[in-house]
Amino acid sequence: MEVYLDNSATTKVYDSVRDTMVKLLQQDFGNPSSMHTLGFTAETYIKRAKETISAILHAGPKEIIFTSGGTESNNMALIGAAQANRRAGNHLITTEIEHPSVASTMEYLEEQGFRVTYLKVNEKGVVSLQELEEAIQEDTILVSVMYVNNEIGSIQPIEQIGRLIKTKNPKALFHVDAIQAFGKMEIIPKKFGIDLLSVSGHKIHGPKGVGFLYCRDKVKLKPLLHGGGQENGMRSGTENVPGIAALAQAAAESYDKLKEKTSHMITCKDWFIEHVEELEDVKVNSGKGEESAPHIVSVSFLGVRSEVLLHALEQQHIYVSAGSACSSNKPSVSATLKAIGLKKEEIESTLRFSFSDSTTIEELQYTIDTLKQLLPKLRLFRRR
Amino acid sequence: MEVYLDNSATTKVYDSVRDTMVKLLQQDFGNPSSMHTLGFTAETYIKRAKETISAILHAGPKEIIFTSGGTESNNMALIGAAQANRRAGNHLITTEIEHPSVASTMEYLEEQGFRVTYLKVNEKGVVSLQELEEAIQEDTILVSVMYVNNEIGSIQPIEQIGRLIKTKNPKALFHVDAIQAFGKMEIIPKKFGIDLLSVSGHKIHGPKGVGFLYCRDKVKLKPLLHGGGQENGMRSGTENVPGIAALAQAAAESYDKLKEKTSHMITCKDWFIEHVEELEDVKVNSGKGEESAPHIVSVSFLGVRSEVLLHALEQQHIYVSAGSACSSNKPSVSATLKAIGLKKEEIESTLRFSFSDSTTIEELQYTIDTLKQLLPKLRLFRRR
Repeated sequence: MEVYLDNSATTKVYDSVRDTMVKLLQQDFGNPSSMHTLGFTAETYIKRAKETISAILHAGPKEIIFTSGGTESNNMALIGAAQANRRAGNHLITTEIEHPSVASTMEYLEEQGFRVTYLKVNEKGVVSLQELEEAIQEDTILVSVMYVNNEIGSIQPIEQIGRLIKTKNPKALFHVDAIQAFGKMEIIPKKFGIDLLSVSGHKIHGPKGVGFLYCRDKVKLKPLLHGGGQENGMRSGTENVPGIAALAQAAAESYDKLKEKTSHMITCKDWFIEHVEELEDVKVNSGKGEESAPHIVSVSFLGVRSEVLLHALEQQHIYVSAGSACSSNKPSVSATLKAIGLKKEEIESTLRFSFSDSTTIEELQYTIDTLKQLLPKLRLFRRR
Repeated sequence: MEVYLDNSATTKVYDSVRDTMVKLLQQDFGNPSSMHTLGFTAETYIKRAKETISAILHAGPKEIIFTSGGTESNNMALIGAAQANRRAGNHLITTEIEHPSVASTMEYLEEQGFRVTYLKVNEKGVVSLQELEEAIQEDTILVSVMYVNNEIGSIQPIEQIGRLIKTKNPKALFHVDAIQAFGKMEIIPKKFGIDLLSVSGHKIHGPKGVGFLYCRDKVKLKPLLHGGGQENGMRSGTENVPGIAALAQAAAESYDKLKEKTSHMITCKDWFIEHVEELEDVKVNSGKGEESAPHIVSVSFLGVRSEVLLHALEQQHIYVSAGSACSSNKPSVSATLKAIGLKKEEIESTLRFSFSDSTTIEELQYTIDTLKQLLPKLRLFRRR
C-alpha cells in the first residue's frame, strides 16, 4: 500500500485539473493580450476563473489577482502594502509562527526600515487577542496573521482579529496567509475584515506555479513585477492561463461538498490522533475536531529522530514530513514548534501527517500498524 | 485553413511538453523540499532540467534559476542587479526598443534614484556600438539590451556589445533579454560576455508561467521573492516542477536540429517578405535572411488601420498581432516602431506575422492570397 500523508507539502492534482491544463496547453493556447479570437478565448478563461474564485470568497472578480503561487502572493501583499502605505506609518504586526514566505519578507521589510512586532502564541499555537490589541498602534499599517498553521494545523481567530484591527485602527490593513486554510474552510474576507488573502494552487489539488491574492477593492498595493500591465497593472507578465483555469477548477472542486470533505478529514484526523496517542511516548501537537485544521496532525515521537522515522516509514511507502517541507531541505529548527513550547528533543522527533479528501481510515490503520512495528525497533537502536 | 502567425505572442506547446506536464501533475507530483522519495524525484527533475538548459547555453547547471516567466526574469535581473550593486554606481544603460518588462522596470529603477541612459536605434532597429561606448561610464553597473526585438525581429550585435562593455568597464554587468531569441539561435553567454539572460517558456512551445534567468557564476543579485530559500536562496516558492521539466523539454526540442528549423523559418520569412512586397502600398520593417530574426515579419499596410486588417484576417482564420501583444490590450504607440522612424500612420497600420517551425509556405500562400483580396476592399472602405 502507498500512503501519501504529505498533502500540506503538496497535493496530486484532481483529474479535472489535469484535463483543464491539457486543453489549454494545446487547444485554447492563445495569449490573453492578443486581439484575435484565440486571445479573447484565453481572456475569457481568466475572467471565468476570477468569477469562480470570487464566488467562493463572496467577493468581486476584480478582487482576485493571479500570481505564481503562495510565496509571490505573500510577498506581494506584504511588500506591496508596506510600500504603498509608508506615509501612513511604518509599523507592521505578525506572529511568531508564520511561514517563511511571510517571516522572511518581514525580515526584508525590517531591513527597509519598517518596525515589526511578532506576536507570541500559546501552547496550542494560537495568538492572544489582548496582546494583539496592545500591539496595534496609530502607525500600524499592516497586520499579517496566517489562518491555519502549516506545521501543527492551529487555527487563528481570524474573524475576531479582523474586528479588533478595524476597531482599534481602521487604517491598518489585514493580510491573511490562507494557503493551508483555503479549500478546507469557508472564508468570507469582507465578513472577516480581511483586506488581503494569499492562496496557493498546489495545496488544493491544483497545479504548482500558480496562486492568487485576494485584494479588497480600493486597497492599494505597489506591484512587485513591472511590465506589460496585466492584471490591471498589479501583476505584469503573460498570464499563466492553463494554470489559472486549473486553479479555479481545483478551487471549485475543493469547495464542492466542502462539509462532507472536511468532516471526512476530521474523522480521519480524530481517528489517527486517538490511535497514535495509544502508542508509547508520543505527544500530539494538534487539536481534535474543529479546534484545529481538518488535515494536519503533528506528532512528537519521543526518543526517535524525525528523519530516521520518516525514512523508515518511507520504506513502507508512507510519505510524511519532518517540519514543514516548505523550506528547501534546510535543517533549521521549526519556529512554530519552538513557539508552542516544545523542548528541543521533542522538536527533533516531530513528524507531520497531512491528509486530503481521499485519505482513508484503511491507510491510517496501515500507518498506525507500521508505527507500532517501527517505533520499538528504532528506540532500541537508539538506546544501544 | 487555420493559420496561426502569432508565435511571438505565444506558442502551442509541443506534444512532448504536454506529456511531461501530465506525468508530473499526477504521477511524480512531490514537493522537491520533501525529504522522502517523492520529493527526491521532483528534485531530480529540476536538476535534470538545469542540466539540459545549461548544456544548450554551454553554461553550468547552477547558473540557471527558474522563474515564473520572462517578466519575472527581466525584473529579477534588473532590480536584483541594481540593488546588489548600488554601492558600485547608479548608472544603467538600455535601449529605446525594449519590451515593457525591461522598459517599465527601468522606469521603476529611475524612481528609486538610478540614472538610466536609453540608446537610440537606427532605421533597422539596431543600436550603435559607438553610442554605447560613449554611454558607458565609471559608475555604470548594468547594461540591458534585448537580443531579438519582439516587434520587428531586429538582432542586436550582442557579442560585440559584450566585448565592448567588458573592455570599457569590466565591472558593469551585461543583461540580455533573450525571450524572442532563445530557441531560434545559438547563445553562448560566456563567449558573448553575457552575465544575465532572460528566457520565457511559452515563446518556445513550452508552458506559460515558467521561465528562467541565466545568472553567471559569481554574479550577485538581490532576490525579488523572500521565503523558503529555494533556488539557492535566489527564488523562494515551491518550484513549479511540471512547468520546469516541460520548459527543459521545450528547450531541448527547440534546439534539436536548430539549423534545419531556423533555415526553414528563414525560407518562410523570405518567401513571405518577397510576396508581401509585391502588394501595393506596403512597407516591410524586418530584414531578410540572417539579418533579422527567422520568425518575425513586421509589415505596414498603408491606408488600413492594423486592428481593421487584423480582424478581417481573423475572419479568414489567420491570427496575427498589431504591435507586440505583450502588453495587455492597451492601445499605446509602439516605442519600437517610433524608434525606427516610422510615421504615425505607418505605425497605426502595422501588423506582425510571427512563425514557428511548423509554419508552412502553403499557410503563407493562403495569407498572401487573403491579403490580396482584403486590402483593396478595406482601403476602398476607408476612402469613402
